Order: sequence, then C-alpha cells, then structure tokens
Amino acid sequence: MKALFFLYEGYVDWEISLLSYILNETGVEINTTALSDEVTHKGKFKIKMDMNIEACNPNDYDVLIIPGGEPDPFVKDDRILNLIRGFDDQGKVISAICGGSAFLAAAGVLRERKYSTSIDDDPTYKHYFNDTFKSETDVTVCENLITAEGNAYVEFAVAVGKELKIFKDREDELETVLFFKNQLRG
Amino acid sequence: MKALFFLYEGYVDWEISLLSYILNETGVEINTTALSDEVTHKGKFKIKMDMNIEACNPNDYDVLIIPGGEPDPFVKDDRILNLIRGFDDQGKVISAICGGSAFLAAAGVLRERKYSTSIDDDPTYKHYFNDTFKSETDVTVCENLITAEGNAYVEFAVAVGKELKIFKDREDELETVLFFKNQLRG
Repeated sequence: MKALFFLYEGYVDWEISLLSYILNETGVEINTTALSDEVTHKGKFKIKMDMNIEACNPNDYDVLIIPGGEPDPFVKDDRILNLIRGFDDQGKVISAICGGSAFLAAAGVLRERKYSTSIDDDPTYKHYFNDTFKSETDVTVCENLITAEGNAYVEFAVAVGKELKIFKDREDELETVLFFKNQLRG
Repeated sequence: MKALFFLYEGYVDWEISLLSYILNETGVEINTTALSDEVTHKGKFKIKMDMNIEACNPNDYDVLIIPGGEPDPFVKDDRILNLIRGFDDQGKVISAICGGSAFLAAAGVLRERKYSTSIDDDPTYKHYFNDTFKSETDVTVCENLITAEGNAYVEFAVAVGKELKIFKDREDELETVLFFKNQLRG
C-alpha cells in the first residue's frame, strides 16, 4: 500500500505526525509532495519532498493526506486541485484535517458530502464551503473522503488507518487510540 | 528565547511535533541539528537541518530537546554527548522523551537524578541507566532535566512549555492540555 502526503509552507505537522508514523509502522510506503522542493512546517522544521507534484499519479497511491495550516494562497494552485480531482475520480481515499479540508472544497470534490474542518467563518475560505453539509462530528467519513477538526488528530489517524484496513483487529484499533491518548493501562 | 532540537535517523516525530508547534506559536526561535545534514523520521519525511552540530553552542539556547526513536548507534557519538554536557554544565533545560533519555544517560548527565523513559530492559541501553532513579511518573522534572515516556507527549510538551514560562497563565496551560487531548469544551 502507498500513501501520498501533500505538504505546504506552514502546514501543521502534529495533525498528521501520528498518521505517517502508524502508516509506516504497518508497512505502508510513504511519499511526500508539495508545490516546491522544500517546505517549512508550523513547528519550523524544513521538509525535503520525495516527489515533484507533476510526477504524482493517483494510480500509484491508495490514499492522499492533507494537513491543516494556512492553505491560502496554495489552495488556488491548479496542480494540487487537479491532483485531488484525480484521486476523487478514481474513488481513492482522500483525507484532510483542519484547514486541509479547504483544498477539498476548492477542488470541488466535497460536492454534497458531509465534511469536518476547523475553519469557521474565515472569510478567506468561507466561499469554498457549503455549510449545509458541515458535519456535527469532529471526524467525518463520507464515501472516499475522511475529514476532521485539528484537535481530533488522534481520531483522524485511526479513522484513516481503519479505512485502509491497517489494524489487525478491533483490539489493535482501540489500543492505538488509548496509547495516543495516554490512557492505555495494563 | 531559542530552542535547539537534536534529531537523528528514525526519530519519532509525533513525540515532539506538539512541542515545536507550541514553542513557535509563542515566539520561541527554533533550530534543528543532527549528526548529518538530513535525517528521515519514523514517519518517513526527510528533514533538512538548520545547524551543523559542531556549530551549536549551548550559550545561544535556552533549551535542548531530544525525541525518541532508536538512539543506537548515535548514542555513542561524542558530538551529541558533549553538546548535552555543555547544556548541563550551564544548567540549561534539557528535555528528552522516550528513547531520547538514553542520550542523557549516555552523556552521564542523569547522575542521581530522577528520569522517565519508555526504554524498559532493552539490553542495548540498559547499562546506561541506573534503575534506582527511574521515576514512577510518565513525565519527570528534576532540576534542569525534563524526561518523559513516549505516550506522554502532550504532558511532556506542556511540562517543557511551563518550565520555559511560555504560558500566559494557568488557564492557558490547562486549555493547551485539553485541546491536544481533544477534551476542550465551551
């Protein structure tokens, strides 16, 4: 199995750091891409990309993952919008957390599907979303889309893992949640 | 204020991703260093370092932060051991989580001070530690040292932040914990 992370300047790394770890630990191959060769995340580490975005083909991947941050002005770039549409056209899993959901909205793949996001009435992004379909829950799985609020980063990681069937069984899934909540005992 | 993150091949990024974020959000300057120009973390992102380790001077920093992972063979490298000793000689805050505590043990700075670590009876590292001083708690603050078990990454980030006095008040500190536990309401 293979996962593609789309990163961008100022992305929020803790929203996806559990997910990249869990995927790698369960044997999923990981690639990173961005609109430039290098980006600096919100915690100020510099990340060097594996892939040029033009070279990324949805055929090669099982899931696309997009973290939060400040998507503007990247949310207007056709290279990422078309990549998202390519994943959606093939019904591949697309997962986005916090501000990451703005890319899905801008690409037009949300359509009339339920979504979660931490973006709330921000005039920069508001016009991309149709509030009618905003979910009441902090993680929303709707067809091939998995979206979440930033604070639900543990639940988001587990929801994506579950969709990709990387957990051995229900016990493994529950233990993962409790470990990352620091509530695993015995 | 200025923080130095020591990274190494295969380090566990989610153990320190909240911390680098919180520090940056509160205006702390962040530098990364390693034994090489680039390392790949446990979630497979490639990180490019800001600083050559030989150029790092404890005088320039307020805190040194070391994540977990598999410290062997890096734990035997004098460049990082001497850097840790330099921070300790000046009484600067040194924080390490999970396997990161093995670097402090190997550098000899734990002495007879209480520590936390997720390393448990691993023959590779066991001889570095003196079990008598292993803490019962998952985060331990002892003089200038802050150490933690990996699963306590939220509590670790907040303990380091508290030591550096980056929280406005007790309410700010408590809200940070609850936000990252996804338990903040109202």
